[in-house]
Order: sequence, then structure tokens, then C-alpha cells
Amino acid sequence: MFDSGVGGLTVLHECLVSHPQENFIYVGDTGRFPYGPRSIDEIRTFAFQIASHLLSLDVKLLIVACNSATAAALPWLQETLDAAIIGAVHPEAEAAVQITRNRRVGVLATEATVASGSYSRALLNLDAGLEVFSQPCPRLASMIQSGDVSSLELVEAVKSYAAPLLEADVDTVILGCTHYPLVTPMLQRIFGRDVTLVNSAREIAREAGEVLERKGIRNHSEEEGRYSFLCTGDVDSFVEVGARFLQMPFENVRNLEISELERTMA
Amino acid sequence: MFDSGVGGLTVLHECLVSHPQENFIYVGDTGRFPYGPRSIDEIRTFAFQIASHLLSLDVKLLIVACNSATAAALPWLQETLDAAIIGAVHPEAEAAVQITRNRRVGVLATEATVASGSYSRALLNLDAGLEVFSQPCPRLASMIQSGDVSSLELVEAVKSYAAPLLEADVDTVILGCTHYPLVTPMLQRIFGRDVTLVNSAREIAREAGEVLERKGIRNHSEEEGRYSFLCTGDVDSFVEVGARFLQMPFENVRNLEISELERTMA
Repeated sequence: MFDSGVGGLTVLHECLVSHPQENFIYVGDTGRFPYGPRSIDEIRTFAFQIASHLLSLDVKLLIVACNSATAAALPWLQETLDAAIIGAVHPEAEAAVQITRNRRVGVLATEATVASGSYSRALLNLDAGLEVFSQPCPRLASMIQSGDVSSLELVEAVKSYAAPLLEADVDTVILGCTHYPLVTPMLQRIFGRDVTLVNSAREIAREAGEVLERKGIRNHSEEEGRYSFLCTGDVDSFVEVGARFLQMPFENVRNLEISELERTMA
Repeated sequence: MFDSGVGGLTVLHECLVSHPQENFIYVGDTGRFPYGPRSIDEIRTFAFQIASHLLSLDVKLLIVACNSATAAALPWLQETLDAAIIGAVHPEAEAAVQITRNRRVGVLATEATVASGSYSRALLNLDAGLEVFSQPCPRLASMIQSGDVSSLELVEAVKSYAAPLLEADVDTVILGCTHYPLVTPMLQRIFGRDVTLVNSAREIAREAGEVLERKGIRNHSEEEGRYSFLCTGDVDSFVEVGARFLQMPFENVRNLEISELERTMA
């Protein structure tokens, strides 16, 4: 699986919980983070480089564990590469449609993800009668990434993002960014007990499990799998920030040279 | 759940297998069968009448157990009615995408369903890199409905429909019409052991189960549920033909007057 940085480690965390016998390789493109402000073409190029590198390592399933990369590149990667590839958006959209009882669904996501309309499309494609309320959360991912999960400033920001969704009487809210599960307790407190929060990382892991099972490619070993990490930026800061996202300490992190990735395209 | 006739009883059969504790009401609009040659507007009107009738009976989930009605009316029903509504196409498309390993998927369906493009759209929406091969099977549903599941003529017809898909080297084939599961043994023999047949009735039942579970509306009774049938045409022929589709004898069939349905719209 890959992400532009450390956010996708919440997806890896859920995969390790649900599929502990599988082997995982995680690529964090921290040397070119963030993808948000980049052009679609640039994101596709980066995603293609990383996907090709992972496929050269003989992976059986590729997970795009990043909303920006999913919105910009997933269909294009699927068209271009001969591999099983899944990503964000569809898994959690399906979960939300299945969960909601009043058919009023909220989405918390970055500005770019909301602007792409990918959640609205995926949700309405499954239930054309839903009311979808998408709330961009401009500073949330960067605050969480910087280590803040409890400041008063963060609480106020989250309350202001939640307010329009509460006003709209949603009963289900998609956490549409891999960073947001880190503030789930705060979100659940602000939204209250009657709103179901859909953790996109957990739903991607669930989708991965269905694919492994149905393709008959699940690892049936009884032993715990191995996992390793590649990052294109500084290894020490990846380890430091990443440990909070993965919710465990790491080892097996090595640097992946961007120049090596660029050779893939040659 | 409802269908234009008896075909949806294969969906009921799978639901009774998977969710035996639930209560079901099945409406077969046999008095206005078949929907295939009718206009979109007419199918929407019929679907709306039946859906409204079922909702007036306080159902918790509505299943459009019919491909023609799903293609013509599902999004419109979802937009119009305040209810949880699922249908065909998406559940089996998702299953096929999860199952295929060579990403070459075949679809067997009626001419109208193939022409609507609904399977191609649903499949490519989930994996833009799939190769989808859709095969219209003009006479298959009517032959099966007439009671023929083993004649030489039927075998020859099925072989001719299967040939282009085998030629295309698909590893997964969606049975995209509720009638087709009745000839699964023949299909499996013709396609061989290496092709996975995706039974749309079974996948709809699976989707229904996920929805019941995630909305928290599953019936937790330990007793077997009740099921009853309404049909707008002749009750005796519904019972006679339907028993083959449901794979059990029935009782509790009563006539539903079309004039009663039409009053719903007034």
C-alpha cells in the first residue's frame, strides 16, 4: 500500500488488526508530500512510479491508502496496470449507505477531496435518494500530523466543522481522510452517541479482506506476517510521526530514492 | 421485495437461506409481465405503485428483485421514496470485481439489460481496468420460465451464449438475470471449473444482510420468519411456475388487484 505520507498508516493499522497473517509493504512518499496542491498529472506520475515499484516486488494486492491519490489516480492506475488495485472512497461510501437510517450522511474531508466530489458521486451512485453534506476541514489533517490531538484550538476547529453536519441532522459521518481516525474519541464526543462515524481506514481493510478471500489469495499461514516500510523522505521523522499513526513502534524502515522511482518511468 | 413476475423468487430463495428469521412479502407483477418491452416511464410508475403498497405494509427494507426494474427505476425510487431500497447490479458487480483474478469479466443478461449498460458502468466504476464482455441471451429467460431447464435446444442456446465469453478468456461470469440460477449446473458444466459464476440472487441477499446488520434492523428472533406472496395475475399459474423458482411449494399467495395499486398514485 502507499500514501503521500504517514496518513495511510491508519489503513495499515486496520489491516494488521484484521489480516495479521498477511505480509505488508508500505510506501510513504514523504519526500514529495503533500500531494494536495499538486496537479492531477503529477499525482498520477508519482502514483504510477510507486505502484510499479511495489508490483516489481511481487505484491498480490495494491491498496491506494490516500484520498488525494485515490481521487486523482485510482481509475487511471487500474486502466494502466495489470494488477488488483483498490483504494479509498468506495469502501466507506458503501458502509455509510448501509448504515444510515435517516439517509442523511455527512462527510468530513480535506478541501481537495470535497472539491473533487468523489464521495458525493460514490454515495449517490449507491442510493440516489441520500442527502449528502460534505464539510471541508482545511487545517485538520495538518494539525493532527503535527501531533496535536487535544488542544483547545483543535477542539474549536473540529466543533466548527461538525456544526453544519449536526445542524443537518446526519446520522452517519464518513471520516474521509486517513488522518482523522486519530481524533475519533473527540469526534464521537462532539457528534454524540446517535451519530455513527465511518472510519475509512477500517472499511478499506474490510474491502481488502473481501478481495483476498474471494480471489482465493488470502495467506492461510498461522504465523503473523511481516511488514516493512519505505519512505522517500527523512527516515527518522517518518518513524517519529508514523508511530502515532500506526499505534505501535516501528522498525524495518528504509529510504527509497526518488531517483530510483523515476527510473521506473524510463 | 418485488419483481415483474416469478424471477425474483430466486432472490427470495437466497434470502430465506441466509436470513431465515426475517419476514418477507413478495409481490410479483404477473398481471403486467413482462416489463422488458415497456417504456421507462411505465416501469417507473409500476415500480412506484408496488413500492408504495409495500411501504404501506411497513416493510423495513425494499428489494427490487428484478433487473429491468432496477435499471429503469432504482435511482428514481430512491430519490422519490423515504425508505431503504436496494436492487440488483451493484451487489453482483462488486462480487465479480472482488473475485476475478485476470480482470476479464463476462455478463450474461437479457438484451434490454445489456443495452442499458448498467453492468458495464457498475463494474468499471469499481475497477476501471477490467475488460467486460456482455452477452445478450435473447431467449434464455423465457425458455427457463416455460419450464425448460434441460432440452437440447436450451443447451445449444446456452453454448452459443457462452462461446464468446470463453473465447474472451473470462474467469468470472455474472448471471445478470434472476432466471439464470435455475440452469447453474448446465452453465457450470459449459464454462468449466475455472470460471466462477456469480449468482446475482445470492449477492443481493448478501447485500440485504449487510444492510440489516449495519442499520441494526436485523430480526434477532430465533424463530423462522413468515413469508407471503401477492401477485397481480392469475394465482394458480403463479404458484405452479413459482414453485420451481422458489425451490419449495408455496402457500399464502393472494391476488393484488392492479386497480388497488393504481389508487396508490391518486
